[in-house]
Amino acid sequence: MKITVIGAGNVGSRLAKLFIIAGHEVTIGSREQEKAVAIAAKLGDTVKGETYRNAAASANVILITTPWANNATLDLIPELGNLTGKIVIDCTNPLAPDYMSNTLGYTTSSAEEIAKLIPGVPVVKAFNTIFAEVMEPGKQAFDGQKATGFYCGDDAAAKEIVAKLIEDAGFEAVDTGVLKNARYLEPMAQLNIQIAYGLGGGTNVAFRYMRR
Amino acid sequence: MKITVIGAGNVGSRLAKLFIIAGHEVTIGSREQEKAVAIAAKLGDTVKGETYRNAAASANVILITTPWANNATLDLIPELGNLTGKIVIDCTNPLAPDYMSNTLGYTTSSAEEIAKLIPGVPVVKAFNTIFAEVMEPGKQAFDGQKATGFYCGDDAAAKEIVAKLIEDAGFEAVDTGVLKNARYLEPMAQLNIQIAYGLGGGTNVAFRYMRR
Repeated sequence: MKITVIGAGNVGSRLAKLFIIAGHEVTIGSREQEKAVAIAAKLGDTVKGETYRNAAASANVILITTPWANNATLDLIPELGNLTGKIVIDCTNPLAPDYMSNTLGYTTSSAEEIAKLIPGVPVVKAFNTIFAEVMEPGKQAFDGQKATGFYCGDDAAAKEIVAKLIEDAGFEAVDTGVLKNARYLEPMAQLNIQIAYGLGGGTNVAFRYMRR
Repeated sequence: MKITVIGAGNVGSRLAKLFIIAGHEVTIGSREQEKAVAIAAKLGDTVKGETYRNAAASANVILITTPWANNATLDLIPELGNLTGKIVIDCTNPLAPDYMSNTLGYTTSSAEEIAKLIPGVPVVKAFNTIFAEVMEPGKQAFDGQKATGFYCGDDAAAKEIVAKLIEDAGFEAVDTGVLKNARYLEPMAQLNIQIAYGLGGGTNVAFRYMRR
């Protein structure tokens, strides 16, 4: 797949690496091309750096990994241009600037707010409950038990592709239903933050959904 | 400990059994004593059945396992009488009558609503993210991995006791901070419902919080 990562911070740069290892073609999108090229160069020889619009144009799948506060994510969506025919993976969480609370919930979610801006484009929520520290080669599993990559969305075909990407990145994909269920996935991420940062447990942790 | 279970349905009756096995003294509280006695008899010879008020009066710890819809839980709290010096464990979720959505969230939680009714009494949220099917002897672990019993509350001493009870019931206790964080635990339970019922995955599943 041709995967573009928007926002190459902690989460974005790590997911980029995991997708490169899995054999995907990865482009980093940034507001300025120079910055994108510099980040891409750090990630590997095959990684391209492009402006938001060019990075989005060349991709099948676009990962949104930008901060939520100060409208950072919602403001950049229109800069991506026409996304018809592409899949958007929302990895964001509607965190307050200090990370310690969610600024949306119960009646909406960051996934739904993003989807409103790009009608007709399938949005899938994924990767938002996994800490960046766990998004490293060899760190996706704990004693052989893979961390779970929960995802949700309204487009079955897009979800199938995202499930495969979650597995490619080394996690166990678990479908959690419609995009509206991001209202439950985003609080789960905040729970993780409360344990890791609020209580000082650290981010070398992950949720696993166990079945038998 | 002297543990009273309010609401001996799927969750309450199973937790009662697990606490009996762990050597605790268990009382079932119901609106009518006859009903309480009948339920108690099914659970074991040592289990008592009492009215809400008497059941609460004799306990150190009171588990609330009643349905949320139609104000069922909030209406019965005053019937428990004076709870000073006791610990209340809130196992509820603010579910709609069809279970498929939460009726509270983001700005409050069922745990906080219960706490408002009993000022000065420590309320600890626990057991709400575990399906009743997993609350059975021998079913608390999946391939040797214990299901996680997340809990939160504002009273450190009460939380310590509840953590011990979670472990006594066969689960791994994980502290998630202040009672307000029930706003994140309750959506997590709804996520579980969406996967188990909404998508038909079934309830023989559990969350595990992995650390290393």
